[in-house]
Amino acid sequence: MFIYSNRFYIIMDLGDRFDLIKRNTSEIITEDNLKNLLSSGKPLSVYIGRAPTGSIHLGHLVALGKLFDFERASIKPKILIADLHAALDDLKSKWEELDKRVDYTKKCIELAFDWERTPEFVRGSDFQLSQAYVSDVLKLSTITTVEKALHAASEVTRMKNPKVSELIYPIMQSLDEEYLDVDIQLGGTDQRHIFTYAREYLEKLGYRKRVEVLTPLIASIRGPGTKMSSSVPESNIKIYDSEESVKKKIMNGYCPEGVVEDNFIIQLINFFILPNDGTFHIERDAKFGGNIDINSSEQLIKLYTEKKIHPLDLKNSVAENLIKRFKNARDYFERQTDLLEGLGKSFLPY
Amino acid sequence: MFIYSNRFYIIMDLGDRFDLIKRNTSEIITEDNLKNLLSSGKPLSVYIGRAPTGSIHLGHLVALGKLFDFERASIKPKILIADLHAALDDLKSKWEELDKRVDYTKKCIELAFDWERTPEFVRGSDFQLSQAYVSDVLKLSTITTVEKALHAASEVTRMKNPKVSELIYPIMQSLDEEYLDVDIQLGGTDQRHIFTYAREYLEKLGYRKRVEVLTPLIASIRGPGTKMSSSVPESNIKIYDSEESVKKKIMNGYCPEGVVEDNFIIQLINFFILPNDGTFHIERDAKFGGNIDINSSEQLIKLYTEKKIHPLDLKNSVAENLIKRFKNARDYFERQTDLLEGLGKSFLPY
Repeated sequence: MFIYSNRFYIIMDLGDRFDLIKRNTSEIITEDNLKNLLSSGKPLSVYIGRAPTGSIHLGHLVALGKLFDFERASIKPKILIADLHAALDDLKSKWEELDKRVDYTKKCIELAFDWERTPEFVRGSDFQLSQAYVSDVLKLSTITTVEKALHAASEVTRMKNPKVSELIYPIMQSLDEEYLDVDIQLGGTDQRHIFTYAREYLEKLGYRKRVEVLTPLIASIRGPGTKMSSSVPESNIKIYDSEESVKKKIMNGYCPEGVVEDNFIIQLINFFILPNDGTFHIERDAKFGGNIDINSSEQLIKLYTEKKIHPLDLKNSVAENLIKRFKNARDYFERQTDLLEGLGKSFLPY
Repeated sequence: MFIYSNRFYIIMDLGDRFDLIKRNTSEIITEDNLKNLLSSGKPLSVYIGRAPTGSIHLGHLVALGKLFDFERASIKPKILIADLHAALDDLKSKWEELDKRVDYTKKCIELAFDWERTPEFVRGSDFQLSQAYVSDVLKLSTITTVEKALHAASEVTRMKNPKVSELIYPIMQSLDEEYLDVDIQLGGTDQRHIFTYAREYLEKLGYRKRVEVLTPLIASIRGPGTKMSSSVPESNIKIYDSEESVKKKIMNGYCPEGVVEDNFIIQLINFFILPNDGTFHIERDAKFGGNIDINSSEQLIKLYTEKKIHPLDLKNSVAENLIKRFKNARDYFERQTDLLEGLGKSFLPY
């Protein structure tokens, strides 16, 4: 098959397409289902949802960047801006603010990558209030126990004194697969309970179950026991944070020498930079071994655990990489401050 | 004020209207709110909802019959046939069956009383799937904890391994007050938790809280520890049950001599027959004291506790009363058996 990708033209067989989709994922539910889809010969599509609850940061970009592999494998990507889900998860997402949050989120996703074709964006509230959709929400709600829904949503919504909306959340996300008419859903591993709920329950309504593709989550900047949180500016890296701020956050990143476990810098390279760039270039003084190009996670892990690369060399190169990568975003938000107006302090560049 | 009622023409002042609404109720939330409504001079309306989950029986008629008092007090009655609520409460109400159940329920309510004007029926799914309504459902769901919703629905839905739908149930019932544009909701005392939830939460969306009027529930036919259930034909009296069946059920009714507590026959007269007829006529042999007309609950309770009326005399007259009252319904369902087709055994005349 001769297919167009956003990076190169290639002839790709079934195995190559499967491998392309599988690389840098943590799980595919199920690999057999995916193989069947690929061999069906039908045009395929994948979607990823982003509930605009807070600012867009590095943690969100791993799964989004994976869309390029789907495009390379001739699978059409859609991005759902799940505004109603944001409201369902977070009372602070005031309903009147959703328009602004949708615009902001879309713009950030556009600026975060070097898209050749702008991906198709769909806004949740544009179809999730239709009679057919709502009827299906009610139908699923009659066969989903409170216990089951709590479990499905447990790693995604806040779950602090849970609200009824948090139980509606996974029900709606399942139906999105059907109503967006996609074959595959893509998301971080925190989505696993919702994904398996969707597979089990869509079939009960007579819809087909989808293939679910999960990507790993990047460890926290500040090491184990901490979290990347949109509402805590110093805990994440926004694509439009200042150069100084990016440098500082990377320099403070958890990166113990020789240890890859929970290593923020190593995971950032392996889960984000390498999948997107193919190569990671390290600049270093000749006396420390000179420049080096990393071409695979395995190579990086080997060199790092053998202490042949020093954390500081990694950090300098990562900071350089991110600053260069996000120049467009920084420039844009420097000019267009109105997009951030009224969204709260945590959205401002830091 | 000169007002039209379905029974008589009267001139009625505020106090009379209030007393008319209050009589035979178990609670009004709140009486002050009701007085304010009545004195506002605005045209007022009341609604009662019936989720068509099962057959219509005597237990459902107490609150419905109360609508006549509202009409007499110049308050326009509406009856909501809450088909989506039936589906939310009861998976066995298959979605495809809802049309049939709505027709059946409407017809039963029409036949159960001697309406001068057919009341206004509204079908739930006709407005509960609109975008505005659904948005409000989602909004309320974000501020209603699972715990609160479980409490609100606890005496109304099944609550056996509760489903998400049972938590959506009270949220929708609250919004019905707003979307039906009524001032008052009427229902049995089992609705109390939902009613108080509605008052508390409608205001949070900026809607006004309604007046809630509760009617007592008739004790079970077979005495304490049993229940009137639509799905158990011998536990209830349907309006189209055969004469023999009505007689037999009344004769077996729990009615200990001199004791009014949990007394099915006494409650049937006090909560249903007297409010609707104004008088209850007892036929009895001259040697037992001769015929007697009961004009108030107090009078009945006094005579009964003094053992001046024997259970058998009461039962005979009650059976007579019900058989006469429901003649139209029996005749109708004898001819129109297609209305019962496919609804299941518990709907058949017994």
